[in-house]
Amino acid sequence: MGFRFRNSYFAIAVAFLLGAVPQAVKSQTMEERLQRGDAVVRSLNNGAPQPTLERMRQEFPFLATATQGYALGDVWSRPGLDNRTRQLAAVAVFAAMGEAAFMKIHAGYALNIGVSEGELKEIIYMVTVPAGFPRAIKASQALSELFAERRAASAKQP
Amino acid sequence: MGFRFRNSYFAIAVAFLLGAVPQAVKSQTMEERLQRGDAVVRSLNNGAPQPTLERMRQEFPFLATATQGYALGDVWSRPGLDNRTRQLAAVAVFAAMGEAAFMKIHAGYALNIGVSEGELKEIIYMVTVPAGFPRAIKASQALSELFAERRAASAKQP
Amino acid sequence: MGFRFRNSYFAIAVAFLLGAVPQAVKSQTMEERLQRGDAVVRSLNNGAPQPTLERMRQEFPFLATATQGYALGDVWSRPGLDNRTRQLAAVAVFAAMGEAAFMKIHAGYALNIGVSEGELKEIIYMVTVPAGFPRAIKASQALSELFAERRAASAKQP
Amino acid sequence: MGFRFRNSYFAIAVAFLLGAVPQAVKSQTMEERLQRGDAVVRSLNNGAPQPTLERMRQEFPFLATATQGYALGDVWSRPGLDNRTRQLAAVAVFAAMGEAAFMKIHAGYALNIGVSEGELKEIIYMVTVPAGFPRAIKASQALSELFAERRAASAKQP
Amino acid sequence: MGFRFRNSYFAIAVAFLLGAVPQAVKSQTMEERLQRGDAVVRSLNNGAPQPTLERMRQEFPFLATATQGYALGDVWSRPGLDNRTRQLAAVAVFAAMGEAAFMKIHAGYALNIGVSEGELKEIIYMVTVPAGFPRAIKASQALSELFAERRAASAKQP
Amino acid sequence: MGFRFRNSYFAIAVAFLLGAVPQAVKSQTMEERLQRGDAVVRSLNNGAPQPTLERMRQEFPFLATATQGYALGDVWSRPGLDNRTRQLAAVAVFAAMGEAAFMKIHAGYALNIGVSEGELKEIIYMVTVPAGFPRAIKASQALSELFAERRAASAKQP
Repeated sequence: MGFRFRNSYFAIAVAFLLGAVPQAVKSQTMEERLQRGDAVVRSLNNGAPQPTLERMRQEFPFLATATQGYALGDVWSRPGLDNRTRQLAAVAVFAAMGEAAFMKIHAGYALNIGVSEGELKEIIYMVTVPAGFPRAIKASQALSELFAERRAASAKQP
Repeated sequence: MGFRFRNSYFAIAVAFLLGAVPQAVKSQTMEERLQRGDAVVRSLNNGAPQPTLERMRQEFPFLATATQGYALGDVWSRPGLDNRTRQLAAVAVFAAMGEAAFMKIHAGYALNIGVSEGELKEIIYMVTVPAGFPRAIKASQALSELFAERRAASAKQP
Repeated sequence: MGFRFRNSYFAIAVAFLLGAVPQAVKSQTMEERLQRGDAVVRSLNNGAPQPTLERMRQEFPFLATATQGYALGDVWSRPGLDNRTRQLAAVAVFAAMGEAAFMKIHAGYALNIGVSEGELKEIIYMVTVPAGFPRAIKASQALSELFAERRAASAKQP
Repeated sequence: MGFRFRNSYFAIAVAFLLGAVPQAVKSQTMEERLQRGDAVVRSLNNGAPQPTLERMRQEFPFLATATQGYALGDVWSRPGLDNRTRQLAAVAVFAAMGEAAFMKIHAGYALNIGVSEGELKEIIYMVTVPAGFPRAIKASQALSELFAERRAASAKQP
Repeated sequence: MGFRFRNSYFAIAVAFLLGAVPQAVKSQTMEERLQRGDAVVRSLNNGAPQPTLERMRQEFPFLATATQGYALGDVWSRPGLDNRTRQLAAVAVFAAMGEAAFMKIHAGYALNIGVSEGELKEIIYMVTVPAGFPRAIKASQALSELFAERRAASAKQP
Repeated sequence: MGFRFRNSYFAIAVAFLLGAVPQAVKSQTMEERLQRGDAVVRSLNNGAPQPTLERMRQEFPFLATATQGYALGDVWSRPGLDNRTRQLAAVAVFAAMGEAAFMKIHAGYALNIGVSEGELKEIIYMVTVPAGFPRAIKASQALSELFAERRAASAKQP
């Protein structure tokens, strides 16, 4: 039921198309991509693995691999955008989609890499314009939780 | 059918609540907000008014005033976020919502204030993760149009 | 990082554009808009402030001000639509967007201003057509909660 | 591959459940529902059939029958909500979902049954709050087209 | 406020339109459709009624009747698509819309009619492409709950 | 601006995590994934490349590579779901999201691998339940176009 090369014509066509992809990219292995994805998670998450991702490994291994290899290893590691901008844009998109739990995770990453609470608030204010007030208010509630958790955690430390 | 203060209790409660809003904000007039909104549009649009906004003035005056006074004058003029980050986040949200025409307008603003074509592409690549490939591909098609229009316009200039 | 008038040309252009906005609107202050927004909330909420809005004041002051000044003070206070129709249409939109918590708040407002439980049910039945059954069923569950809370509250009163 | 009653237990359970549905509803035939749906369309559309619906009859007969029998015959004909309110709420939902073509059809029905252009504008202004500015602006553009078409049509009449 | 035949012209037009609908469909009564809907639910739900549907009967009778008569009796009972494919496509749509609770119900039906856990996982993996990673991850969490509940239930049986 | 391994602790952690991924997957190169993606496209598209994908290669190379390597090479080539079911589920999701252009492309692929016009219609009928009538009607219009194009193309052949 899968797909297979049907004839040698395909092999030739593919070889041609692949000509546009640099050699360094073509020879990249999944192992390298997974390592890069892991490095991204740890850079964003204070050196720790991401619990949501780890929980998926046993039961949804392809989804875990795709999140780590594609979403984090391929996309989130790209050099053309600084990490602050990428995190703030991602927070805006998750808020606009009504995905408050994912927004909270990525807002936490943003704080970890030096984005201020004030900048996160500004991003949520901005979301009222393209996506309306309910999505911004829901996001503000998730941010309030995040800020409170951070304060509680830092209060515990000596 | 509108709303009116029902008794003096309200006036007192409002006075109390308003205590939290700084005096400078409270005395702001609509005229000041509209001027600020107009300044924002012109900063983003090479000094020109925004055609979509202008077309609404005759038939949808409140929507034009709200876009200029609230969306641009109140939100987009806030100082806590730099313009590049706000534009890139807005482009991401419009792309994720499938609103390619609005994305194109705001991507054009981004170019006007110094965002590179490469940064806009990176934002669209990022959108595949939270919102899927169709929304990113649609956005890439609108960006291609925008880039082509810009090149055609600059080719005409002496 | 904000926006400023770049030259006197802008001031003139703005003066021209503002010609289309009636003087009464232009001289409206934020204080007046906030008062109007507060009056709207209390008209809808049996004279009480709105808890979700109040919780935002400390940590998300701009979002609270925008909700009160723009959403309630500018939009919800407009005279061209009766309050029953606006509430029923808002309930339909929140249901269609899957925002059951906001739907419940606005359905409660609708009951407060004399909309019947039966009319709210009809609005939810209608939502199956544009937005499908899951959104309508989710909304019906939130309405059931609201109706039960109202009955419990009125049972407690002597 | 369809479903069938597996045993007589089902028939008894169904008979019990159906006890809650009034006899008048239970004996309603599809023919009656389609006639009611057709009457709704013509009431909204100045006595004419609806072109989008008619085009579906040949190639998508079930979708045409479901639109006429369920959406129009069952839902839109219900007596518990006046037609003006239902049309205005539907216009709000279509606008909020970004479905401008359907919004335009239902805004046209609204005009046909006596809703004013001003009321339609107010509904669109309201949509900025739950669903953001792009959806409201897109809807305003579709309304502008509708208003222009109506004026052009009435200018042709002697 | 409802709709009524305004004149005999309508009756004739309807008679004409109905010519396209087969006689067997036209004479179908609501009772027959409800029975078919009930049979569909029980086929999918191991012979038991559906709790969400049953809870709506008292307070939202039309929504319950529409779910049973239209969604299940008319749509879900159609013979042109096998039940496995319909359930897997429905699971994909609920996941893509972010409606995890409905996805879980329909994934449970899928298991009941012989779809494997592995096939449900593949459908969720596929959803990353059209709708992005958050919707797929949310769906995977709901599937994990479902799988755990099934294992717990079968562990209790002797 | 990118991410880098910060210390050897990471390398060890990654090595541990990667233990869960089979060796065959880990050593997969991008070149292999791109070839697999190309084979998938050609299997679905009668041996031809996909025009939308090809147009992206020049200006959005990462998006083209991600579509080919991840969406097609990783996801669409997975063996756990037959191609018919995957295409029908994808058609349902694109329809429910209102992405008629993508739905049309994938409905065309479905026809190419032997799905019947009737099955595609049934999928669209199903979409009325989770996502409402407008999305299903829009999808039916795109399907009508596709069916007409196929008939026109086959009429030209001798």
